[in-house]
Amino acid sequence: MTINQDLCVKKGRGRPKLFDREAALDKALELFWAHGYEATSLSDLVNATGAKAPTLYAEFENKEGLFRAVMHRYIEKFTAQRNAALACPESCVAKGIENYFRSTAACFTDREKPAGCFFICTSTVLSASSGEIAEMLKTKHHSQEETLEAFLLERQVKGELSAATDTRALSKYLTCVLQGMSVRAREGATREELDGIIDTMMQLWPMLAGVCQITTKKTA
Amino acid sequence: MTINQDLCVKKGRGRPKLFDREAALDKALELFWAHGYEATSLSDLVNATGAKAPTLYAEFENKEGLFRAVMHRYIEKFTAQRNAALACPESCVAKGIENYFRSTAACFTDREKPAGCFFICTSTVLSASSGEIAEMLKTKHHSQEETLEAFLLERQVKGELSAATDTRALSKYLTCVLQGMSVRAREGATREELDGIIDTMMQLWPMLAGVCQITTKKTA
Repeated sequence: MTINQDLCVKKGRGRPKLFDREAALDKALELFWAHGYEATSLSDLVNATGAKAPTLYAEFENKEGLFRAVMHRYIEKFTAQRNAALACPESCVAKGIENYFRSTAACFTDREKPAGCFFICTSTVLSASSGEIAEMLKTKHHSQEETLEAFLLERQVKGELSAATDTRALSKYLTCVLQGMSVRAREGATREELDGIIDTMMQLWPMLAGVCQITTKKTA
Repeated sequence: MTINQDLCVKKGRGRPKLFDREAALDKALELFWAHGYEATSLSDLVNATGAKAPTLYAEFENKEGLFRAVMHRYIEKFTAQRNAALACPESCVAKGIENYFRSTAACFTDREKPAGCFFICTSTVLSASSGEIAEMLKTKHHSQEETLEAFLLERQVKGELSAATDTRALSKYLTCVLQGMSVRAREGATREELDGIIDTMMQLWPMLAGVCQITTKKTA
């Protein structure tokens, strides 16, 4: 009986009935995150997911389609979770920002996954021929800064931030620190080290909000 | 006469007499910087430098040797220049830091070269087989943070910074902002946008030095 089942699996052709799309996406996500878009070959993806190449083609059309699905999986698994930390209505603006940064530090340094931010890691080196992938990553990654700015604006409307605060300049500065944290995590920084940087930033927070004023020269 | 010269060039074999090592390194630097270590093939390097493969092998042994020479060329051309901006003895500590950041922003956004920091761009995606390259990049890149810390310590000894300032925590925070600036430049930020972030950071400087105190928990 066992032998027959083995033979059946080995001889089976076409799309397996039990293709686990989410598990395959998680494996593919790990590969792209660790090695980037171009250095990850279809053969790497076949090996890691355990799916056959025709199955992957049937599900995702091509490598670019698989990458797009992987990007959405990352957003669903990690970005949404961090955004929830930010948006908790019970938190004051400073606490919301701190929660977002701590949650990001935890994600960047989780040893179960590649270090750093998926968007930064996959977009740093792309050949000219991957222009569409580059554009897609840039747009999605930019949405992090937009999320921060929308949060700051919302809290400004509620009176938690001075009306003079330049929420765009402030969100640019905050995103720059997050991006630096991704680089540090990729180079081996621990959660504790990133938390040290967040400690420094949160101590500066009251002055930071005061420094970014709409009277200062706006950055593009 | 002209025809004979052309024939001579076309028929010439072996190492050309006029191999311009520095020009070849500059071309190779641009390729590695834009596309990373692994996505840059020997054939790309041959095309870009105009040198024949045997010439490159004779000069640099292999791709790794060429990459090592390229890394030193980058340090010689760009890192040394930024360190000079930092170390100007006439500048106060804040001015030294600001000069270093402005010089770095100029380097990251110079349209004549690939955007961002060479070390970050080339080290973000490396396969497990490039462990030695990864280690080399990490060590050299870490020296930026050490340069900043040495500068802060030197100015602390001169009394320009309080004895209570945790120069290590401060240099970690500053490096994090620089690393974020590299990511932003890579994603298309202009010099003006990076200067806006530096404006914010320099306005925070007096509080920043005060916030990083040796009494706070040291990060590793």
